[in-house]
Amino acid sequence: MNHAREKYWQMLEKAAHLMQTCRLSDLFTHDSQRVNKYSICVDKIYLDYSKNFLNDDILALLINLADSCDLSLAIKQLLSGACVNSTESKPALHAALRQDLDSSLQVNDVDILPLVKAQKEKMFHLVSQLHQGTYLGTTKSKITDVVNIGIGGSDLGPVMAVEALKEYRQTSIKLHFVSNIDPEMITSVLQECTPSSTLFILSSKSFTTPETLANAQVAKKWLEDKLSPTDINKHFIAVTANPEKAQTFGILPENILQFWDWVGGRYSIWSTIGLPLAISIGTSHFESFLLGARKMDEHFANAPLRQNMPVLLALIGIWYINFWQAKTLAVLPYSTRLRHFADYLQQLDMESNGKTPRVGTATGPIVWGQVGTNGQHAFFQLLHQGTHFIPVDFIAAKLSHTPFKDQHLHLLANCLAQARALMQGSEEKRELHEYMPGNKPSNMLLLEQLTPTALGQLLALYEHKVFVQGIIWGINSFDQPGVELGKKLAHTLIAGLESGAIDSKMDPSTQSLIEKIRA
Amino acid sequence: MNHAREKYWQMLEKAAHLMQTCRLSDLFTHDSQRVNKYSICVDKIYLDYSKNFLNDDILALLINLADSCDLSLAIKQLLSGACVNSTESKPALHAALRQDLDSSLQVNDVDILPLVKAQKEKMFHLVSQLHQGTYLGTTKSKITDVVNIGIGGSDLGPVMAVEALKEYRQTSIKLHFVSNIDPEMITSVLQECTPSSTLFILSSKSFTTPETLANAQVAKKWLEDKLSPTDINKHFIAVTANPEKAQTFGILPENILQFWDWVGGRYSIWSTIGLPLAISIGTSHFESFLLGARKMDEHFANAPLRQNMPVLLALIGIWYINFWQAKTLAVLPYSTRLRHFADYLQQLDMESNGKTPRVGTATGPIVWGQVGTNGQHAFFQLLHQGTHFIPVDFIAAKLSHTPFKDQHLHLLANCLAQARALMQGSEEKRELHEYMPGNKPSNMLLLEQLTPTALGQLLALYEHKVFVQGIIWGINSFDQPGVELGKKLAHTLIAGLESGAIDSKMDPSTQSLIEKIRA
Repeated sequence: MNHAREKYWQMLEKAAHLMQTCRLSDLFTHDSQRVNKYSICVDKIYLDYSKNFLNDDILALLINLADSCDLSLAIKQLLSGACVNSTESKPALHAALRQDLDSSLQVNDVDILPLVKAQKEKMFHLVSQLHQGTYLGTTKSKITDVVNIGIGGSDLGPVMAVEALKEYRQTSIKLHFVSNIDPEMITSVLQECTPSSTLFILSSKSFTTPETLANAQVAKKWLEDKLSPTDINKHFIAVTANPEKAQTFGILPENILQFWDWVGGRYSIWSTIGLPLAISIGTSHFESFLLGARKMDEHFANAPLRQNMPVLLALIGIWYINFWQAKTLAVLPYSTRLRHFADYLQQLDMESNGKTPRVGTATGPIVWGQVGTNGQHAFFQLLHQGTHFIPVDFIAAKLSHTPFKDQHLHLLANCLAQARALMQGSEEKRELHEYMPGNKPSNMLLLEQLTPTALGQLLALYEHKVFVQGIIWGINSFDQPGVELGKKLAHTLIAGLESGAIDSKMDPSTQSLIEKIRA
Repeated sequence: MNHAREKYWQMLEKAAHLMQTCRLSDLFTHDSQRVNKYSICVDKIYLDYSKNFLNDDILALLINLADSCDLSLAIKQLLSGACVNSTESKPALHAALRQDLDSSLQVNDVDILPLVKAQKEKMFHLVSQLHQGTYLGTTKSKITDVVNIGIGGSDLGPVMAVEALKEYRQTSIKLHFVSNIDPEMITSVLQECTPSSTLFILSSKSFTTPETLANAQVAKKWLEDKLSPTDINKHFIAVTANPEKAQTFGILPENILQFWDWVGGRYSIWSTIGLPLAISIGTSHFESFLLGARKMDEHFANAPLRQNMPVLLALIGIWYINFWQAKTLAVLPYSTRLRHFADYLQQLDMESNGKTPRVGTATGPIVWGQVGTNGQHAFFQLLHQGTHFIPVDFIAAKLSHTPFKDQHLHLLANCLAQARALMQGSEEKRELHEYMPGNKPSNMLLLEQLTPTALGQLLALYEHKVFVQGIIWGINSFDQPGVELGKKLAHTLIAGLESGAIDSKMDPSTQSLIEKIRA
């Protein structure tokens, strides 16, 4: 830890200690301008962070901490294509995917923006053909069902965004998602489809992902059984950073959409990995989605740290994780359409920042959550009366897409009421088991409406928040070395399960489980 | 805390302290019989709990702790209908719903089993009519779509179980679920249905749940608009403990299925709340589901604590939560069909045990998770290299329902590999960022196959686990007082949002958010 960072870290430790007896609600009494000072609007997203254990001094310390980690420089480096993914010697250029593609961005002496533009145009052309019914299967059938086969970043983003923007869907083409290697998943999806009118998207950055290739083989066999002897290759699109491998699988060159090794899987929804979303909402809404993210990028690049929404969200997280010992972050969107948002954020945050830094501080939280009002009838009991400290991000949209304005107001009222109840607790005299201490902090993110633009902004907001936290913890948010060992061990275990040959150095529990499974 | 409990508590604190430097893998070296001693089989569920920070002394202390809380007596009380829900002066008789209904169980001088049997028969009769196509809508159409409107316990159990047992579905009737008050949910479901052939199940214990009633009104209007002037009441079934209110809504008496106030919402899948599941899998599989739970009940009632699966799972949880400061429990089923299991368990566990006890110990954990292998490509990075201590429950089934045995073996290999990787870590010399310390504990629950019986056993296992933990923490696992304040505040806030009238005693953040929303 550099000297300045260490100094601010210690000051923050002291400040947290002093604040343990503070009541959140008193902070408003002491400062009538608190809400104005502790809220910020970026385009159509409003963040109220006033219901947190913050005051001006603490915010200043947190900004100082960020400065001591050269955050402003790091932001510039991220956005300009510097090698921020140090362990893999790569830039992390997801923001480039949504910038003005007629400008220029040199990476290793190559201007990458024309490449991005060409692939986007190729994707949009495919989308138009599908929408117009001019993309035909091998028996000249129109495509009615698209199955995205991908896992992790090739799945969570598209699944989440297609559902989030369902009100914007432009097509009668039905989208399906297959991710798990569990064969019950693809079997179940194939039962809903007809070979002649089904198109498979094989989404894999490396085109070596075992889950995706196994499911792709099942799909191929299914097509061959029904459509042979015609050429089934028209029923496959590949989205990959490894076009050679895709061609070896049999994908037609014109059906390969590319992205690049400088886009992390969990940051790839903006690339051709977003194909299912583009098919669902159409090219114009997809452009709006990119534009929303770009607006957040510009804000992130230009706003001073104290007025920078991703930076503020990140620092509030740091404050609770490192100085209040929070282990988790609850993300509670009051929107059915955001029902996959917590799953998406789990990957974005936990795979990026679930790492151990050189200096032994806590890092990325366990991200979890569920849509409101459903969560209220599930686990909110624990938020209100449990024994764990849990910061919360509430997310809501002012406007509904339905005509049921009144019912939407009830949804919003519940969201506000929960944030308020967490802070206030109950002052009534009650039985012990009814005791509600309150004093639980939360952020409130209020969107105008869950539009493609707003969703783009929201995702870019959390992407940049995660980046800022990584910088302050001194970790690389863009690699994932922790997933390698499991992959390697799975390889050995497959052999054990298939043949019964057991490595005697294997632990007795695993040995015994192999025997149970083979029995 | 009674004296004995305090004594064992302190001994466990010391034991945990001494064990901080222990390597899980060494425990196997010291005891060649460890797997046999630390595993248990109940019918078709096998639990291997050997990869935990346990030894014989600690297990003995945990059993002593349970004894000091009179656990055996509490189990008897639960199953015999004693008033275990003390704050609400009620028994908690979910186990009665799955026992032999031709026996007898007196509650307040009433034998409740004939009541349970009568309602089950009424439900089964309805299911048969639906399956045979003899239950007709008001225009004499057969029912093709059933929409369950319910939230919390009236939703999570049916949603989870219908998906878990999809391989056993008996009918072409399509099931839909509407839970959230967010009007985008019901709007979206109604777009997929036709009024003349759609049946709505209104599932609400109190029949006053605002979300359910609001959605029921939308459904009613939709039917009236399309089917008027015929009588739409044939399109509603009510499942409730408050039949009077259901009749007032307009439900026909013959269409009201009852359950009772001695069944908690989160324990109600075994009652008529299970109607969607019974429709999906048919009455005979539903009986198997009940039978599975009954087998676990019998084991729970009769096995000594040291050989009692729910007790062991509970004590391992207590050990980590109270003596190792675990805040969360990751539940990772390697089965696509169990994709809603973590959501279900969130309510079961967190609503039951997210409470503050008289003695200031930590209670119920934050339950979270995702199916494997998907989780591996999302958040497993944090499990392996993050900075938080996270006990894990792995769940897997030996047999697949598909013919793709080899692909299923890959799924199992991944599950075993992750448990092994968490324990072993990597011994290779690596760069700092690749460092994987291992030494992370987990349980492995291995089912023979995800059958109705196995699912029944699995759910009863976790129900009883939660009960045991509640007893040891000295909390009532069957009430949920923490959800009341939010409800009350929502009521006030609806008025504020509708009229703009703001209570000046309301905190400035909420006031300001109301203004933003109304602007």
